[in-house]
Amino acid sequence: MRRVAIIGVGCTAIGEHWDKSLRQLLVEAALKAMDSADVERIDALYVGNMMSGALQEQEHLGALVASHLGLRGIPACKVEAACASGGMAIHQAFLAVASGMYDYVMAIGGEKMTDRKTPEVTLALAMADDREYTIAVGASFVALNALVYRLYIEKFNVDQEDIALFSVHDHKYSVNNPHAQFKKPLTLEAIMNSPPVADPIRLFECAPIGDGAAAVILAPLDKVKDKENAVEILASTAAIDHLSLNEREDILTLWSTVEASRKAYKIARIEPKDIDLVEVHDAFSILGVLSLEDLGFAEKGKGWQLVKEGQIEKDGDIPTNTMGGLLGRGHPVGGTGVYQVVEAYYQLTGRAGANQVDDAELALTQSLGGVAGTSVIHILKRMR
Amino acid sequence: MRRVAIIGVGCTAIGEHWDKSLRQLLVEAALKAMDSADVERIDALYVGNMMSGALQEQEHLGALVASHLGLRGIPACKVEAACASGGMAIHQAFLAVASGMYDYVMAIGGEKMTDRKTPEVTLALAMADDREYTIAVGASFVALNALVYRLYIEKFNVDQEDIALFSVHDHKYSVNNPHAQFKKPLTLEAIMNSPPVADPIRLFECAPIGDGAAAVILAPLDKVKDKENAVEILASTAAIDHLSLNEREDILTLWSTVEASRKAYKIARIEPKDIDLVEVHDAFSILGVLSLEDLGFAEKGKGWQLVKEGQIEKDGDIPTNTMGGLLGRGHPVGGTGVYQVVEAYYQLTGRAGANQVDDAELALTQSLGGVAGTSVIHILKRMR
Repeated sequence: MRRVAIIGVGCTAIGEHWDKSLRQLLVEAALKAMDSADVERIDALYVGNMMSGALQEQEHLGALVASHLGLRGIPACKVEAACASGGMAIHQAFLAVASGMYDYVMAIGGEKMTDRKTPEVTLALAMADDREYTIAVGASFVALNALVYRLYIEKFNVDQEDIALFSVHDHKYSVNNPHAQFKKPLTLEAIMNSPPVADPIRLFECAPIGDGAAAVILAPLDKVKDKENAVEILASTAAIDHLSLNEREDILTLWSTVEASRKAYKIARIEPKDIDLVEVHDAFSILGVLSLEDLGFAEKGKGWQLVKEGQIEKDGDIPTNTMGGLLGRGHPVGGTGVYQVVEAYYQLTGRAGANQVDDAELALTQSLGGVAGTSVIHILKRMR
Repeated sequence: MRRVAIIGVGCTAIGEHWDKSLRQLLVEAALKAMDSADVERIDALYVGNMMSGALQEQEHLGALVASHLGLRGIPACKVEAACASGGMAIHQAFLAVASGMYDYVMAIGGEKMTDRKTPEVTLALAMADDREYTIAVGASFVALNALVYRLYIEKFNVDQEDIALFSVHDHKYSVNNPHAQFKKPLTLEAIMNSPPVADPIRLFECAPIGDGAAAVILAPLDKVKDKENAVEILASTAAIDHLSLNEREDILTLWSTVEASRKAYKIARIEPKDIDLVEVHDAFSILGVLSLEDLGFAEKGKGWQLVKEGQIEKDGDIPTNTMGGLLGRGHPVGGTGVYQVVEAYYQLTGRAGANQVDDAELALTQSLGGVAGTSVIHILKRMR
C-alpha cells in the first residue's frame, strides 16, 4: 500500500443556506480545497452524502458535482454510510490513492437540510436505522439516543448535568471557529432549561440541522511537495456493528468504535495515550461521552469525568472537539466526517487560530453512522 | 497494485418480489455468492444501490446488509452512481483489494422497484439527471433517451425497426436465462406495435421495472485456489461526462463510454477486436446501438448494422448481451452492473447453459449511469 497524505482542505460556513443549492455548497468546498492544495488535476472524486435522494430528489451526485467542477472524464460516485458518509468517503479516497490507481483524489462531504420541513428531515435522519423493524414502530433517531442516555445515567449513577457539560464544552470552542453554525457560548443552566426533545435529551444537547460541505484532497505521500501544509493519514479504518440497539448485547458500548479504533491504533502503531487531539462524533452529548470511553481515553462509565475535570480542554490531557464538535460547529450530516478531518488538519498545520492546540502531532477523528452502526476512524500526523 | 480476481458470484431471480424486502434480496444474492466462492470470511462490503432512500426510506444499507449477514466488524457502505451503482460498487471493491488493505471483498448490487406506484418510480429514476435544470422542466428519464433516439434516426437516416431489433435480440437470449425477468421471445412486429412511451421509444424497447440483487466476491489473484471458477479483472475503469444532454456537444456519442473503455483497453493492453463477449447497458434499444459504437465495435452511425447482420449473436463476431441484456434479463437499477459481471463470469467459466459462447476468453461489461453521465467498464479474463 502506498502511504497517503492530505494536501489541501476547504469548507463552507455551516448554517441555513437558503440561497445555495446542495451542488453549490459541494462545489464551493471543492474549489476551496483545490486552491488550498494548489492542484488543478483531480483523478477521482468521492461525494459523502446521506439524504440527497430524500431531501433534494437528486442522486448521481458524483457525476453532478464532478461535471460542475469541469472534471470531465474522471470516476466519481456518492458514498453513503448514514451520518458517517463523510468519513467513509475519505476512507474510499484513501484506498483509491493507496491502491496506486489514482494520485490526486478528492473527498467532499455535504448535506442540505434546511429547505425541507422538520418532519421530513426527521424521517430522513431515521433512515440511518432499520426502517422495517425499528423506525416503523415510531422511533425517531433522537429517541434511540435517548434510550442510551437514560440507561447510562441509571447504570452509572451519573447526573445529567455531567453529561450535558459536553455541550457547554463544544459551544465554548465553536465561538472561535469561523465556519461554525453556533458562535455563542452556552451555560449549563441554559442547556438544562432548553426544551426536552426525547427525555432525557434536551434541545441544546442535540447537534443542529444545517447546510454545509467540506472537502479534502489526498495524494501519495511521496508526491507531497509542501510538508508545512500536509498531514499524513497514518490509518484509515471502518467497522460496522449490529445496526439497531435491540440487536446489541450492550447498548452502552459503541462497539464499532472500539473495533475500528483498535484496528487504527494497530496500523498506526500507537496507543490512545499518544493522541494529541480528538474529534468525536457527538451528535448528542451522550455520544461524546461514550466515544471518549470507547476510543480508549477513559474507562466505561467515566468518560464524563474527563469533561468535568477539564481534560478535554485545548490545554488538557486529551484536547477534544477543539473547533466545536457537532454540537457547536454543526452537523450537516454527510459533511460532518469531512469537517472533522478539515479541523484536525487546521490544528496539525497550525491554522486553528484562537483554538490552536500547542504542538499537536497526532490527531484522531471518529465519524459515526446511526447510533454507531458504523464507525470510521482516521489517525493523522503532521508532516512539518 | 495487486491483481484482482472474481472467485464467486450469486444473484436472485429478477421479477416482482412482493414477498421479499430489499434487504432480503441483497442478503440472498450475497449468501449465494459466498457459497459459490466457498469463503466464510468477507473483509469489506460495498452495496450498489440508487433509490433506497426514495423508494424504501432506508439508507445506511451497507451496515444494514453486513449486519444481517453476520459480518460484524467489517467496513461497509453504499455506493451510488445512478444506474451505474452496481458497476461502481465493483470498481470500489476492485480498488479495495488492489490496495492491499482487504483480501476478500464483496460487491452486491440491488434495487426494489415494484412496491411503489409508477409515478414515484419514474421520479426516482429521473434523479439520475439534473433535478434543478433538467428534471424540473418536466423531462422524464425515458424522454431524454427519446431525444437521442430521434436525432439518431434523423441524422443517420435509419429506420426505427433497425434499432428496435436490439430488443428482439435481447428477448431471444433471456428465454434461456434462469434469472431473467422476461422469458418469452418478442417479434419485431410486437415491439413496433407496443405503446409509445416517449416518441419514438416503444414500451418493448424499454428495460422493465423489477426487483433483484446480484453479488460478486473479489480476491487477490495470488489467493485464487480454484482457477476453474475464477476470472481475472484485467481492467476496472470509470468516467463521467457532462451530466445532462444539453451540456454536451454531441448527444449521439456516449463520451464517458469512449473514455472509460479507452482507459480499460489501455490498462488491459488489448483492442476492441480482442473481446469475445460484451454486456452493454441497453436500458433502451438506442443505448445498445450507441454502446456498440462507442466501445469501438462499429463506426458511429453503424452500430445497428451489427445487430441486423447477426454479428452480436452468440456465434457472431462480437457476441453481445448473451444472457438477455437489460431489455430481456431486466434492470433492477443498482443491481444491473453486478448482474452483467455475474453473467460474463458464467460465460467465462462455462456455465451459461443454452446460451454458452464457445471458447470465450475475454469479456467486457459496460454499466451506464443516467444517459451515460457515468460509464463503468470491466474487462474480465478467464483463468482456466
